[in-house]
Amino acid sequence: MKNILIIGCGLIGSSLLRVIAQKKMCKKIFVYEKSKANILKIKTLKLPCVVTTDFKNVIPKLDMIIFCTPMSEYEKIILKINKYLTSKTIITDVGSSKEISLALIKKKLKKSISWTSSHPIAGSEVSGPEYGDSNLFLGKWCILIKEKNFNKKHLIVLSKFWKKIGSKIVTMDSKKHDAVFSMTSHLPHLIAYNLVKTATDFEKQKKYDLVKFSAGGLRDFSRIAASNEIMWRDIFFNNQKNISKVIDLFIKNLRLFKKDIQSKNNKSIIKKLVDTKKVRKKIIRLKQDINKPDFGRS
Amino acid sequence: MKNILIIGCGLIGSSLLRVIAQKKMCKKIFVYEKSKANILKIKTLKLPCVVTTDFKNVIPKLDMIIFCTPMSEYEKIILKINKYLTSKTIITDVGSSKEISLALIKKKLKKSISWTSSHPIAGSEVSGPEYGDSNLFLGKWCILIKEKNFNKKHLIVLSKFWKKIGSKIVTMDSKKHDAVFSMTSHLPHLIAYNLVKTATDFEKQKKYDLVKFSAGGLRDFSRIAASNEIMWRDIFFNNQKNISKVIDLFIKNLRLFKKDIQSKNNKSIIKKLVDTKKVRKKIIRLKQDINKPDFGRS
Repeated sequence: MKNILIIGCGLIGSSLLRVIAQKKMCKKIFVYEKSKANILKIKTLKLPCVVTTDFKNVIPKLDMIIFCTPMSEYEKIILKINKYLTSKTIITDVGSSKEISLALIKKKLKKSISWTSSHPIAGSEVSGPEYGDSNLFLGKWCILIKEKNFNKKHLIVLSKFWKKIGSKIVTMDSKKHDAVFSMTSHLPHLIAYNLVKTATDFEKQKKYDLVKFSAGGLRDFSRIAASNEIMWRDIFFNNQKNISKVIDLFIKNLRLFKKDIQSKNNKSIIKKLVDTKKVRKKIIRLKQDINKPDFGRS
Repeated sequence: MKNILIIGCGLIGSSLLRVIAQKKMCKKIFVYEKSKANILKIKTLKLPCVVTTDFKNVIPKLDMIIFCTPMSEYEKIILKINKYLTSKTIITDVGSSKEISLALIKKKLKKSISWTSSHPIAGSEVSGPEYGDSNLFLGKWCILIKEKNFNKKHLIVLSKFWKKIGSKIVTMDSKKHDAVFSMTSHLPHLIAYNLVKTATDFEKQKKYDLVKFSAGGLRDFSRIAASNEIMWRDIFFNNQKNISKVIDLFIKNLRLFKKDIQSKNNKSIIKKLVDTKKVRKKIIRLKQDINKPDFGRS
């Protein structure tokens, strides 16, 4: 490839920038970034890219465009670049929910242009180009969305692109994607936010100073509850239907748990606690987490 | 001190054993352990202690007894040692909930004997003497329970004991203790167990293979949901009232969260997500967690 444009250069965008540059995967990396603070950071860090707003001249010569902004920014940017797009350019994004955003993209994007959506399962609670890491995608899953009438050529190129970066590829349609990640990612984040919110409410209500005792469990939740708020608002709004369903399932199970505790149902509680341990073992076996007690904190 | 008896030599018991020996805090450490597998591990690891069942001869010469078993074991052991106890021996435990267990202890323990309860806020998802670590308590809180008619002398000695081990001391009554830790520790564990259970149910229901995508959030919960089931059953049963209350508060907040998502209440959602981020900052500032993105996994 000759030219790649990264739109939005935060944690994910700047990690892509770093690994693309490191592996010399194209000749020139363009970056479009609306935050002046981020542009300053990109320059101070001397990230190997050309910051541009010149869509008219840049877009026609691109091999690939990667949207790395929060999903709520897509529409505005599509409307700005639409007229310069040609069908040879591969367009992708790294958004965390797909069905609603792909419907919007289809509606707004100029006919004859394809969009092949990606979702690298990588990230962190920190945001901004200064946290970018060329190894962020190494050994991680990248989901490629394969809908009816997908652009086969683009999917193949994109698949090679993510593999080169170090990711493992799996394809699925947007419907399945949004159901799977409502459970493995969106609900956990929501639960973490909700637990920290509940702890704060409880602290006020009881007038106890309790956050200082958070090492007993709460702190693990607080980490993922520190993730970027714009990104997560967009995910919650876009994947609302699936998330609502898993919230209901979660509340149903929590009520049963409470009932078992209140009735001291030993057999049922022990079964629950033993079964979840098996899931942890599976997660370690599948290399989805490190096998160090307490994440090796000590 | 001359002689200390550790009852139950799992993660906590064997960590205490290691640090007491390392700092030469007494002449002889006795261990009572009912698991044959654990006794074998203690011997293989050459932990510096005398494994004993000879309560008749050992108990009268003890300066301190530390109960490190699951709370459901206390009664049985108290009944075994009761007649050999003298008022000079300091007795403590490291259980994670206090009100119910202290009521039981008071009822079962021979009159004239005091029990001064401790709760070191330290632990891990792993169990067994092989995981013990002499630094486990370093810089961590240890809660000492101070009820009406507490034994002042024992509290002072115990406080020095935990400080020597590296802990920071705070005293509170069992009622406050159980309320605080229902929120900072018991609910987070319950939520983690419940999330993993919900993910398992969802996986079966949808016939999706989703645990392999747990790096997006679920894996963090699975770690604390891998903790010892007997210990956690005991905590859930013993602190049932407080836990039920915080479950209700959690569900109430979760319903509001769902409502905000469904009505796309931007202002309310952003406020929630920003506020929780502040709690994370406080947790880091209070040194209750490490300040490394993603726990420094990569």
